[in-house]
Amino acid sequence: MKAVLVVLDGLGDRRCKSLGYMTPLQYARNRVLDRLAAEGETGLVDVVARGIPNGSDTGHLALLGYDPFTCYTGRGPFEALGAGLSLSHEDVAFRCNFATVADDGTVLDRRAGRISTEESRELAESIQSMEIDGIQFIFRHTVEHRGVLIMRGEGISHRVSNVDPHGKTSAIQKPRPLDDSPESLKTAQALQKFLEKTSQILQAHPINIKRREKNLPLANYILTRGAGRLPNLAPFEQKFGLRAAVVAGGALYKGVCRAAGFDVVNVEGATGTVNTNLGNKVKAVVESLKTHDFVLLHVKATDTLSHDKKPREKAEMINRVGDALEKMLEQLTTDTYVAVTGDHTTSSEVGDHRGDPVPVLIWGPDVRGDRVTKFDEISCMEGGLGRIRGVELMPILANYLGTLELYGE
Amino acid sequence: MKAVLVVLDGLGDRRCKSLGYMTPLQYARNRVLDRLAAEGETGLVDVVARGIPNGSDTGHLALLGYDPFTCYTGRGPFEALGAGLSLSHEDVAFRCNFATVADDGTVLDRRAGRISTEESRELAESIQSMEIDGIQFIFRHTVEHRGVLIMRGEGISHRVSNVDPHGKTSAIQKPRPLDDSPESLKTAQALQKFLEKTSQILQAHPINIKRREKNLPLANYILTRGAGRLPNLAPFEQKFGLRAAVVAGGALYKGVCRAAGFDVVNVEGATGTVNTNLGNKVKAVVESLKTHDFVLLHVKATDTLSHDKKPREKAEMINRVGDALEKMLEQLTTDTYVAVTGDHTTSSEVGDHRGDPVPVLIWGPDVRGDRVTKFDEISCMEGGLGRIRGVELMPILANYLGTLELYGE
Repeated sequence: MKAVLVVLDGLGDRRCKSLGYMTPLQYARNRVLDRLAAEGETGLVDVVARGIPNGSDTGHLALLGYDPFTCYTGRGPFEALGAGLSLSHEDVAFRCNFATVADDGTVLDRRAGRISTEESRELAESIQSMEIDGIQFIFRHTVEHRGVLIMRGEGISHRVSNVDPHGKTSAIQKPRPLDDSPESLKTAQALQKFLEKTSQILQAHPINIKRREKNLPLANYILTRGAGRLPNLAPFEQKFGLRAAVVAGGALYKGVCRAAGFDVVNVEGATGTVNTNLGNKVKAVVESLKTHDFVLLHVKATDTLSHDKKPREKAEMINRVGDALEKMLEQLTTDTYVAVTGDHTTSSEVGDHRGDPVPVLIWGPDVRGDRVTKFDEISCMEGGLGRIRGVELMPILANYLGTLELYGE
Repeated sequence: MKAVLVVLDGLGDRRCKSLGYMTPLQYARNRVLDRLAAEGETGLVDVVARGIPNGSDTGHLALLGYDPFTCYTGRGPFEALGAGLSLSHEDVAFRCNFATVADDGTVLDRRAGRISTEESRELAESIQSMEIDGIQFIFRHTVEHRGVLIMRGEGISHRVSNVDPHGKTSAIQKPRPLDDSPESLKTAQALQKFLEKTSQILQAHPINIKRREKNLPLANYILTRGAGRLPNLAPFEQKFGLRAAVVAGGALYKGVCRAAGFDVVNVEGATGTVNTNLGNKVKAVVESLKTHDFVLLHVKATDTLSHDKKPREKAEMINRVGDALEKMLEQLTTDTYVAVTGDHTTSSEVGDHRGDPVPVLIWGPDVRGDRVTKFDEISCMEGGLGRIRGVELMPILANYLGTLELYGE
C-alpha cells in the first residue's frame, strides 16, 4: 500500500468579494478534486491548532506528524537543509537576504534590487567562511538574493532576534539575545561582528562597485532571520513504517522533509513558482512510488497568488493542479491512497496567512466515505473525518496503509 | 440514575466486499440498536487517538476514563488481576502460553496443540512457585493453554521483551532488556533462568510423557509476553461517583475493571466466545444494577469473528446482542442510560485491529438527540456527539448521571 500527500501551499482561503463571495476552491470547482472528495472522505484541518495562523515550516512539520510546539525553534535550519547543506543539531542556522542598507542603517531594499543569482553567488564566495569569537560562520548563497548562514561552535544559542526588519520598520535591527542566557548574548554579539565585517567586504566588492556605476542598489548587507536549531526528529520511516520521498520546488519543503529522513527528488522545472512544471512533478511522483511507500507533492504557487491577492489566479492554479492530478491518478496502482490538503490558510483578500482551518480529503481503497461531494472549505465541514489537527493526518493515513504498530494487545 | 455501557469488542469495521461493501453493522441493521441510535445521540470514538490501532487493554482503559498513554505499561497485570490473582504495583506480570518448542528453539505450536484446561492445570502446579536470583516467580494457569506469571522482588522492571514470537518468526525469543537499566537486565536474565528451569520440569512431567506416547505436541515451554506493572488508577467510584460492576467472560476485561475498583460479576456461561450465554449476561446486568450505578457489559465474539475474517457471522452476532439488549431494556428502570460502543475497530477483511473510529450511541432520559437513525460507522459520523476520544466517554456519561463535581464555582 502506498500514499501520495498533495500539499497545495496556503490552499485554504476565505470568501472573496471578487469571486462573488466564494473561496478560490469553491470558484475553481475542480472536477478532479471534487471527484476525489466525493469518492473519499473529507474534513477540516487545524494545521497547528484552532485559530493559530502558521507558517509553512510549522505547517509541514505538523502535516508530517511532528508537533511543531515541541520540536520547532526557527525556519533557518530547514532552509539550510533544503539548500543541500549538512548541519548538526548544535549548529544555529538563519535565512538570509542580501539587502541594500544606507549608512544610517535604513533598509533601502530588502532584496538588493532583486539581485541576480550569478552576482549573489560571487558575493557569497567572498564571505563564505570566517571565525569570530571562536565561532565558525558558514554562509551559502541559495537563489536570487537569498542565502543561509550557519553558526557553529561551543556555547551558542538560537535565541537571537531577526536583523531583517521584514517590512515592520525601515531600520535595520541589531541582533538581540531573546533570553538571559550567556549563550544568547555571545551569539548576538558575534553575529553583530559578522554582519559588520561582511558589510565592509561586500561594500568594497567588485560586484557592488559595478552596481554603483550602474546606479543599481548595492548588496551591502546581510539580513538574517529565522534563527533555529535542527530538531532531532524521530525518522519518518520509524514513526510510520513508510519509506518516503518529497517532490517540491522550494528549499524549505525539501528541508523539512530531509529533517524527517525523506529522500529528496529533484525535478527539472520544479521552481516553487507559478511557472512550475506540474507535469514533471507528477511524473516524478509516479516514478518515486516505485521505490517509496509515501510521496509528498508540494505546490507553492497557490500561496504566492494568495499573498499577491489574486484569488482568481489562485483558482486557476488549483484547476491546473487538479488536471495534473488526473494524469497522476491514471498511473497509480489500485492500492494507492491520495490525500490533498494545504499547510495553512492564506487569505487572498488579506494577502497573508490566517488561522482558518484547511480542507482535507483522503481517497483510496478502504476509506469509509461520507456525503461530501465537493472539495472546498465549506463542504468539507460536513466530512467524515470531522475536524482534525495537522499532526493527526499521518496516523490516519498510516492506519489505512496498515503500517502502524498496535498500541497495547 | 444508572448506566449500562455495552462494549462489543472490535465492533468498528470497514466496508466488506462480501457484504456488498457494507460494514457488518450496516449489514446487521439491528432494529434494537437502530432504535437506541434514533432515540439517543450518536458519534464516533477515536478510542485512544486518531488513526492509532489499539489493543483491548488500552481500549478498555480509555473507555473507562483512564488515559493509557499515561498509565499503561503492558497487558500482563490485567490478565493476572482478571484471573483472580492479587498483585502489587511493584510486581511485574506477564501473559503466558504453554507451547511446544523443539530442541533448536523452533516454536512448533504456540498453544501446545490447544492442550486441555485439566492437563494445563496439572502442569502449572509443578512450576507454580520458585525463587531465582532473589526474585519470586508465581505461575498460575487460567484457561486452556493460557496462564499468567508474576515476578516479585527488589530491583525488577517491566521493560523486558516478549518471549512469544507471536507469528512474527518461528524461533523462540530470549527475553531482552528494553532499556539500559540494571533492573531490566536483571529481570531478563532471571526470567531466562526461569524459562530454562521450567522447561526441564515440564519436559519430564508425567502429562508430557503421556502426550509423547500419544504423539501429541508437548507443553514443554512457557511463552511470556505483555510484561507490565499494575497502574495505580484513581478508583472509578472516586473519579465518577459511580459504584461499578463488570459482566464479562474474558479475564482481561475483568482485570482492567478490577484495576479501576469494579466489582466482578461471574456469570455462568459467559465464556468470552461465540457461544457465550448472552441471556445470562443480560440477567446479570439487570441484577447488578440493583446494587450498582454503573455496569459494563462486555461481549468478545464480535472481535473474534473479525479476526477470523467472518463479517457475515459478525453481523449475526451483532444481531444476537441487539436482541439480548431488547430483553435488558424491558427490565431497566426509567432513569437508566445505555451506551453502546466498541473498544477498537477490527477489520473483517484485514483480520486485525485498525485505527478507524468506532461508532457510539448514548440513550437515556436527558440526551439531546440528533438526526441519526441508524447505528453504524457511516451514519454516526453525523451524530450529535461528534468525534470524541475514548477517555471522554465516561465524563459524558457521568454528566448525564449528575455525579460529576462542579469544576470551579
